[in-house]
Amino acid sequence: MKILGIDPGTGICGFGVIEGRKALDYGVISTPAHTPLADRLEDIYLSLGQIIEQNQPDVMAIEKLFFKQNITTGISVAEARGVCLLVAKQHHLPIFEYSPNQVKLAITGYGQAEKKQMQEMVRLHLGLKRIPKPDDAADALAIAIVHAFISKTET
Amino acid sequence: MKILGIDPGTGICGFGVIEGRKALDYGVISTPAHTPLADRLEDIYLSLGQIIEQNQPDVMAIEKLFFKQNITTGISVAEARGVCLLVAKQHHLPIFEYSPNQVKLAITGYGQAEKKQMQEMVRLHLGLKRIPKPDDAADALAIAIVHAFISKTET
Repeated sequence: MKILGIDPGTGICGFGVIEGRKALDYGVISTPAHTPLADRLEDIYLSLGQIIEQNQPDVMAIEKLFFKQNITTGISVAEARGVCLLVAKQHHLPIFEYSPNQVKLAITGYGQAEKKQMQEMVRLHLGLKRIPKPDDAADALAIAIVHAFISKTET
Repeated sequence: MKILGIDPGTGICGFGVIEGRKALDYGVISTPAHTPLADRLEDIYLSLGQIIEQNQPDVMAIEKLFFKQNITTGISVAEARGVCLLVAKQHHLPIFEYSPNQVKLAITGYGQAEKKQMQEMVRLHLGLKRIPKPDDAADALAIAIVHAFISKTET
């Protein structure tokens, strides 16, 4: 089963596609600073559509949003997330949502894990030589791995 | 100039199209409770696309989000708003954003106006016999009227 993980954001939207313990594709959809929001959302819409068509994932796993701190950032993340959910739906992908704490807990066994620790576990799990860059791509791979763990579909 | 006003939301998304002091079309895109979020977003995407194709507005005016209270509701409103912005962009509509306070101030001359007072001003401005229903449609018309005021394009 191919799993597409998404770490949503309007400026940078991370994605990662895994199958078993192999990373098939990962990276970010990014737009330059000061790009109008609607242009960014269209870019996410088109780019994510291409990523899905190229990789043909079976499901999408995406971060669930919780805001304790920065609500303004949260709004723009939610706007991007809405577009990602739409694209998944248009491509008939079942959608699974995981909170940041679920991801940390599943990956490291510890809900308050450090970012570096998470990224190192992603690297090890996927047998990569280096930690995937940028951070948003590593986060997206982590979300995909969590879905593999939770749905017990990993090899 | 035809103005499409949008009051975004995932469960109920209000829309209103005005030209001068005339309401050409208004209503809501609504989905039953417990409909999965991605299905709702796809419904908004398709329905709003149809509304734009039928009415051929020149611009879209949409509510800007501010959350002081209910952040959870705010997230789902932002997800719907992201999809509305995407649809406007795909239809090459210039997008204008107004905060709830800007809308109240422009319509009633008072930033803290009551909902009823707003709705009555919308009714009067558009020469309608009754206050447009549901509330989300009236709110969307109010946003369109504000853009008409601010861009001085009303007759």
